[in-house]
Amino acid sequence: MEKLNRAAFMISDGTGITAETFGHSLLSQFPNVEFNIEVLTFVDTENRVDKAIEMINDAASSSGKKPIVFATLIDEQLRKRLEGSNCEYFDLFNTYLSNLEEILETKSSHAVGVSHGIANSGGYAARISAMNFALETDDGVSTDSYKGAEIIVVGVSRSGKTPTCLYLALQYGIYAANYPLTDEELDTGKLPDVLTPHAEKLFGLTIDPYRLQQIRQERYNRDSYASSRRCQYEVAQAEAMFRKSKIGFLNSTQMSVEELGAKIMQETGLRRRH
Amino acid sequence: MEKLNRAAFMISDGTGITAETFGHSLLSQFPNVEFNIEVLTFVDTENRVDKAIEMINDAASSSGKKPIVFATLIDEQLRKRLEGSNCEYFDLFNTYLSNLEEILETKSSHAVGVSHGIANSGGYAARISAMNFALETDDGVSTDSYKGAEIIVVGVSRSGKTPTCLYLALQYGIYAANYPLTDEELDTGKLPDVLTPHAEKLFGLTIDPYRLQQIRQERYNRDSYASSRRCQYEVAQAEAMFRKSKIGFLNSTQMSVEELGAKIMQETGLRRRH
Repeated sequence: MEKLNRAAFMISDGTGITAETFGHSLLSQFPNVEFNIEVLTFVDTENRVDKAIEMINDAASSSGKKPIVFATLIDEQLRKRLEGSNCEYFDLFNTYLSNLEEILETKSSHAVGVSHGIANSGGYAARISAMNFALETDDGVSTDSYKGAEIIVVGVSRSGKTPTCLYLALQYGIYAANYPLTDEELDTGKLPDVLTPHAEKLFGLTIDPYRLQQIRQERYNRDSYASSRRCQYEVAQAEAMFRKSKIGFLNSTQMSVEELGAKIMQETGLRRRH
Repeated sequence: MEKLNRAAFMISDGTGITAETFGHSLLSQFPNVEFNIEVLTFVDTENRVDKAIEMINDAASSSGKKPIVFATLIDEQLRKRLEGSNCEYFDLFNTYLSNLEEILETKSSHAVGVSHGIANSGGYAARISAMNFALETDDGVSTDSYKGAEIIVVGVSRSGKTPTCLYLALQYGIYAANYPLTDEELDTGKLPDVLTPHAEKLFGLTIDPYRLQQIRQERYNRDSYASSRRCQYEVAQAEAMFRKSKIGFLNSTQMSVEELGAKIMQETGLRRRH
């Protein structure tokens, strides 16, 4: 089937995170349309709005179809100006805000750029501190710090531990350490001594052995480390260890860090720092 | 002024990222309301929906006010079931999807959990690879790899380089290295030799010296390193170097990594990997 084409703009007076998330979620429901996406951030002056309008109108006339615009502009003057461009306009704030004001029986602040600003992100310091913790305890370093960890992610080398821990820190402010299982530990099948005092904080990651082999080959291509037999053996031993020690685990093969992070939060009952 | 109170639920059939971003952006417009927020993820079965309904109804009866619910459920049966709870219901998909279908002249897929799944995130491999690059080139390590960098973030120790680079990698798939200016380099005021071949990729971070002092004291408390005089001197020298070498720079003091990331993308013209 031939794909449809459409220009789409995500336009924000701030970081663009809300506009992108909002637009992307909706557009991902249309896999048979090829979207040509422009993200415009910090569109907070008439001048910048006019530049956006020019881009939108250009896209409209060159494609013959009105671009889809997902906007999160708070300022009403700017919003109306932008809405006047040659587009199909979807406005997150305008759609819901007056309704919310009624329900909450209070006025909204109409403050620009607050949702991802430093002032408004209560747990911001905690998120940065959690990220430092993840870096300092990455790959089995500073196991002395495990007392301060909320979760210790365990798995074979290249099973996805580091990205998962950094994501847990940055997104949720969770103190996440990670520990790679060594050859010797995998051979004995016994939970490493350094982990036993923290059994209730352990969470396992596993991975399809063929995917693991692929990742290892791309990065190192050391014969034994990336051999099919080695990868299968390590994964089987790690999973056996998780089961024996009653460590909950997830398979990272088909999951993004966003999915892994959300699932881990759900399964462990950890709470994000706001 | 006394704060109003309200229960709010962000309910998703996937990771909850869209529901949270959507809800959080709207709620942050009501600073005089204290929201008691519950995020419920992977609500993709009748059973899970019923659990969510129970929580919502409990919150409604204990507070005497209908909770605000931000939902992104794709499945119509589940959505209708949830909507029947004792709440004020805001549905991202239902509000826009039929309108978008009409405009795009095609049906939406109604696929659950696609917006942050691995299958749909085109640049997922690139984002993980960029994160590995950021880790491998963190703090001036492997300057040999600078050829592969799209941006090299430069600044004094603890000015926010590492979180910024990791965020650029994870959010945008950008290959970002970072280089800490050493005492000697700050003394001479000359751009380090290792950076001169990459002048067009350099981006500076600076920070308020008092905030820098505070961060350094919290982490190390080494007299000279965290002294007020030292912090003021380093920041002044770094900023002078940026100006002299025509390196664009931002001040991280009042900006979150989300803001820094979005501003850097805007100022450098780098493009995210989709």
